[in-house]
Amino acid sequence: MTAGSQGPRPLILGLLLCALGPALTQGGKLLVVPIDGSHWLSLVRIVQQLQHKGHDIVVLAPDASMYIKEGAFYTLKRYPVPFRREDLEVAFINLGRSVFENDPFLQRMVKIYKKIKDDSALLFSACSHLLHNKELMSSLAEGSFDAVLTDPFLPCGPIVAQYLAVPAVFFLNGLPCSLDFQGTQCPNPPSYVPRPLSFNSDRMTFLQRVKNILIALSESFLCNVVYSQYAPLASEVLQKDVTLQDLMSYASIWLLRSDFVNNYPRPIMPNTVFIGGINCASKKPLSQEFEAYVNASGEHGIVVFSLGSMVSEIPEQKAMEIADALGKIPQTVLWRYTGTPPPNLAKNTKLVKWLPQNDLLGHPKTRAFITHSGSHGVYEGICNGVPMVMMPLFGDQMDNAKRMETRGAGVTLDILEMSSEDLENALKTVISDKSYKENIMRLSSLHKDRPVEPLDLAVFWVEFVMRHKGAPHLRPAAHDLTWYQYYSLDVIGFLLAVVLTVIFITFKGCAFAFRKCFGKKERVKKSHKSKAH
Amino acid sequence: MTAGSQGPRPLILGLLLCALGPALTQGGKLLVVPIDGSHWLSLVRIVQQLQHKGHDIVVLAPDASMYIKEGAFYTLKRYPVPFRREDLEVAFINLGRSVFENDPFLQRMVKIYKKIKDDSALLFSACSHLLHNKELMSSLAEGSFDAVLTDPFLPCGPIVAQYLAVPAVFFLNGLPCSLDFQGTQCPNPPSYVPRPLSFNSDRMTFLQRVKNILIALSESFLCNVVYSQYAPLASEVLQKDVTLQDLMSYASIWLLRSDFVNNYPRPIMPNTVFIGGINCASKKPLSQEFEAYVNASGEHGIVVFSLGSMVSEIPEQKAMEIADALGKIPQTVLWRYTGTPPPNLAKNTKLVKWLPQNDLLGHPKTRAFITHSGSHGVYEGICNGVPMVMMPLFGDQMDNAKRMETRGAGVTLDILEMSSEDLENALKTVISDKSYKENIMRLSSLHKDRPVEPLDLAVFWVEFVMRHKGAPHLRPAAHDLTWYQYYSLDVIGFLLAVVLTVIFITFKGCAFAFRKCFGKKERVKKSHKSKAH
Repeated sequence: MTAGSQGPRPLILGLLLCALGPALTQGGKLLVVPIDGSHWLSLVRIVQQLQHKGHDIVVLAPDASMYIKEGAFYTLKRYPVPFRREDLEVAFINLGRSVFENDPFLQRMVKIYKKIKDDSALLFSACSHLLHNKELMSSLAEGSFDAVLTDPFLPCGPIVAQYLAVPAVFFLNGLPCSLDFQGTQCPNPPSYVPRPLSFNSDRMTFLQRVKNILIALSESFLCNVVYSQYAPLASEVLQKDVTLQDLMSYASIWLLRSDFVNNYPRPIMPNTVFIGGINCASKKPLSQEFEAYVNASGEHGIVVFSLGSMVSEIPEQKAMEIADALGKIPQTVLWRYTGTPPPNLAKNTKLVKWLPQNDLLGHPKTRAFITHSGSHGVYEGICNGVPMVMMPLFGDQMDNAKRMETRGAGVTLDILEMSSEDLENALKTVISDKSYKENIMRLSSLHKDRPVEPLDLAVFWVEFVMRHKGAPHLRPAAHDLTWYQYYSLDVIGFLLAVVLTVIFITFKGCAFAFRKCFGKKERVKKSHKSKAH
Repeated sequence: MTAGSQGPRPLILGLLLCALGPALTQGGKLLVVPIDGSHWLSLVRIVQQLQHKGHDIVVLAPDASMYIKEGAFYTLKRYPVPFRREDLEVAFINLGRSVFENDPFLQRMVKIYKKIKDDSALLFSACSHLLHNKELMSSLAEGSFDAVLTDPFLPCGPIVAQYLAVPAVFFLNGLPCSLDFQGTQCPNPPSYVPRPLSFNSDRMTFLQRVKNILIALSESFLCNVVYSQYAPLASEVLQKDVTLQDLMSYASIWLLRSDFVNNYPRPIMPNTVFIGGINCASKKPLSQEFEAYVNASGEHGIVVFSLGSMVSEIPEQKAMEIADALGKIPQTVLWRYTGTPPPNLAKNTKLVKWLPQNDLLGHPKTRAFITHSGSHGVYEGICNGVPMVMMPLFGDQMDNAKRMETRGAGVTLDILEMSSEDLENALKTVISDKSYKENIMRLSSLHKDRPVEPLDLAVFWVEFVMRHKGAPHLRPAAHDLTWYQYYSLDVIGFLLAVVLTVIFITFKGCAFAFRKCFGKKERVKKSHKSKAH
């Protein structure tokens, strides 16, 4: 048997699922509370599919949005927020720029902290404005929705769902500070489940495990800066005491954009559904422009280069270093770059303002993918079996890169520290060393060999929650325990008390019996002696 | 939207999966090492489906087998064992009979212990004879199998798989003493995951949690009687030190005949696939005999009654009590019973030597199911939405009954203690109290609303393991940790030592500084004083 010999089967199945769907489903009403940015771009595919299946969909978004626009397959309800679209764009661009500021460590940390705090406050103000918009909230309450589909990265959607008393489906890549583990009540042993930002794999040395536990211990403090305001807001809106964990525990189903080809195997809970690679589904033929680039590349093929939606400009010095390296490989490089073209740009390097990343990666002539290793990009690399040169910039990108490197499917570079030669060598390595291609192809064949396509699985579970008004049979009883009950500390305490009491009584009993027996004898002896005297 | 409105979809999908399968799969070679009894009856459906998909299948069985016979869709390889088929049948019948022996508790426990020990020794001898059968083992080694599909309830199959160095798929309902949790490295918090034989639900009182932990603590001792001999046997055959946990950890994929409609939600691992209800798949129209019974039952319909394959005879007194109760309900009762007919058998009760349980339960005229609540029966009750009167006899049946009772889908009776009225009342309750029908129908609609049919899912994952030579990407790194590393005890110890050292040094430092400062002053003062004197 050959690995991956069943390649086309899930795709055909997926199509059949879609084709069968509409005829068998009655239309429901779904409220979508997305988060702006790349998160929305994969969520929108599910929304589209659900509309095709006959559901009536309302998408809720601030009037200052970057990616969330009017769409043919949903009704967009906008709400006013105290900032403009431009403010959001500046915040995003500044985040991208901050990567290249080469400040000393402490200064850098303070800057990052301040930036996260400011951006969080901006996004929190949008949430607060939504929840205090009485007119909109009552019109939603009258909407009789069957479910809320939301990205809980910022827990505004979960508050809306609880306010409407409607079951929720969470759609996400993962949450910082193990909030997703808390929300699902999923065990998370720090001995082999690497913590985000630890750069650990699932196989750790002793010191790496020490680091992992220290990060685990500090997680709840670290996340306060982003999340501390949501529980008071929820408590006010819902008129009851609500914690952040209550908000995160509200989901009936968690759709995780992840799988165990990319992530390390770890415990999971029954209401977690893995839909990693959902963004690879929609493939289109290349436009004439890109088809021409690829055809002109000859036997050496092409390299696709993009640092994601947040970074399309790079400081000139760095851009020149990169351009220098790209000029030294025989492949044609398609580089998504909106800044001033570096003066040393070689002939083989084409700058484009946008590129059809997934379609280009799917072309057989693509030899390598230079990426910031965002979760979408990494999955597109895996789906299409393209070895990667990774330059992680922030957030989960370092961990994504670490995982691909551990699996021998790519090389990681520090974009600040790397030299032109480092990039050139990394590219030549992943292209000429066959092991990289073999490893990514193995990952690709494992990833694509699945009984149901991720998009169909996501649609199925959203509809399941709509049909059954939630999924209470998948909710573990752990949600109803206190932390000391969960860890059985009260039972252990009780059993220890029983054991100690038994030991104590036995000891006292023995001592008493000993005194009774030998004490008497001694007294008898003594009295005997005294009589003898 | 209506719950369950998509009822027929998974079935259609399942059929499509099957129809598509053969054309897309290259045939592989599969070795099946089953366990005799009802376990085999659901495993054989997977075997049949795999053969339809073009795989070459060899089934390995002792020449003294009860259920495992020659089949058109596999090659049966028999091996000699030191007992006859009759010995096995007697052991099974005696197990059934032992249920009705009304001995005092302690005497009963000693008898059960002795019975389990004797039966285990019998089955172990079969395993030992297989593994020491050099000719057969070398012919298997030459068979170049792609995978071994086995029931690990007795870990003979896992030893064969390791001996052949071929990946294994485990097929089971569950293992005693949390061996399945150990084998998958799955967390198993005793605070909300009820232990087998505890009769606890997932929501426990303090005292139930105490009982649960005490059972958890004693599990490893309890299972010694069945499993202690397998590790030495494996070590001898594999010529390396092997523990029972090593054997149980060998599986690439665990196919669990369970789901979260029947079982309580709890942590799971990525290589566990839930195929509960796999035995409901094959439905046939009723034979003329049974069709006639059902048609003659009129508006009151029928009740299906079976205590499973192990118990088809009951002591006369008990049989008469049961017959008395059955005579008092208006339904026609179809009772699988091979013993002497009770003299008081009413006209509405038909005794049959065998009945097509799943097909009868699927008939719309079926009003209730009297069952010993074995895992197969409970799933047939759920699939077909029939309320149950449960008389658990041994093993996991008590826990199965408890779960259905907790969910309001049935009533449990103690077959030894119950009176005729108890049975009559229980039957009348589950038939006339609409909540039982509503609850089992709700469970049924949840159970059947799934993206892929359990049989297709099982076949998919066996083929996955054959295609990819295992599923190492789903194997958690926890397998490579010692128990103290898994619980991070070494890291916690180290961190405590660091903290204590820091406290100690700080304290000593302060004390030293204190002495330096105030000690001097004091000395100065003293010397000053002495000078003053």
